[in-house]
Amino acid sequence: MKKIGVVLSGCGFRDGSEIHEAVCTLLAIDQAGCEAVCMAPDIELSEMNHCSMELTGAKRKVLVESARIARGNIKNITEVKAVDLDALVFPGGFGAALNLCDFGQKGAAASVNPEVARLTREIHAARKPIGAICIAPALIAAILGKEAAPTLTIGTDPGTAAEVEKTGAKHQNCPANDIVIDQANKIISTPAYMLAGRISEVYEGIGKCVKAVVEMA
Amino acid sequence: MKKIGVVLSGCGFRDGSEIHEAVCTLLAIDQAGCEAVCMAPDIELSEMNHCSMELTGAKRKVLVESARIARGNIKNITEVKAVDLDALVFPGGFGAALNLCDFGQKGAAASVNPEVARLTREIHAARKPIGAICIAPALIAAILGKEAAPTLTIGTDPGTAAEVEKTGAKHQNCPANDIVIDQANKIISTPAYMLAGRISEVYEGIGKCVKAVVEMA
Repeated sequence: MKKIGVVLSGCGFRDGSEIHEAVCTLLAIDQAGCEAVCMAPDIELSEMNHCSMELTGAKRKVLVESARIARGNIKNITEVKAVDLDALVFPGGFGAALNLCDFGQKGAAASVNPEVARLTREIHAARKPIGAICIAPALIAAILGKEAAPTLTIGTDPGTAAEVEKTGAKHQNCPANDIVIDQANKIISTPAYMLAGRISEVYEGIGKCVKAVVEMA
Repeated sequence: MKKIGVVLSGCGFRDGSEIHEAVCTLLAIDQAGCEAVCMAPDIELSEMNHCSMELTGAKRKVLVESARIARGNIKNITEVKAVDLDALVFPGGFGAALNLCDFGQKGAAASVNPEVARLTREIHAARKPIGAICIAPALIAAILGKEAAPTLTIGTDPGTAAEVEKTGAKHQNCPANDIVIDQANKIISTPAYMLAGRISEVYEGIGKCVKAVVEMA
């Protein structure tokens, strides 16, 4: 059974992983007959109230909140090596651009969590596929843009696309229910809630993304 | 477009709504061409660390945490009346048995959040369907067991089933990927993670449950 790593960044789209995207990812992995290996870095996030959409000033732990999505079955990303996995998938949500890196504040000049960068580079170097959902392709661009010039999508937003291209990556527009495949780099991306208005579009796009990831794994 | 109420109880299976079940419910509602109307009571929950599975001693707000699953689009249940909805669905998770009522501590002697009981009774009296997932049928039994003697399932656990039957409800065993339909009461239930080992079983059972709810609505 193929093992597909899923890198989470909290639990809630404004300060962590986008929950619908993360669950659709886990569902697609299971439907493909593969095993999801959930992980997150053990770092802090700045809590956002998801009713008022305001920062509360409080901190939460990315690993502990991510465990809610993983039903407790989660690893600290420091413990995971490329050899343990057949592929790696990143759901979106602001957490991917605020907790796993700081693309959300710094754009192409983003710095990336060292363990997230380490595992992503290991997977890429081992020629194993990477799936990147929603804003997570910006994270992949921040890690691999310069050295691998991957082609990927964050949907159609020109500002974000321009920032992604400054890393050395190439951006390609894509609708919510479809994917962009970079065959050479084995990177598959889908816009999900960067564009989607409905969860069924997210399910469709992520389903295609995970299917392509699993086939390349 | 039919409006299907979804009653959430937090965000995380040990102290709130089971996230996979809640997302599969929202997905099934959208796939059926209906609109989900998310709601929760504005009460406190006792926070559980989902890595250590221990209570932290801290409190969180059920409405604010539920908003993470609803992507901010959520109502206080006090504002919702049966006339606003075509049906009502309850995802599971310990929150359904700890926050929406206290069946988790008191079994058949449970008391129910007054607003949850009020809306459930209104929906039932209006002959609109109710979907109940995982442990949520125990909540429905606590509300309607005596007056309506509904037939429902919480899977196959004999202890929980016996406690459900003490309310006046009738329990029927059911596998994770199937449903029990009480045609007279328009109550459809499915065991989800009371039995499921895989998220794809949860998706299948909840898909059937929501489909039956929508058809009766």
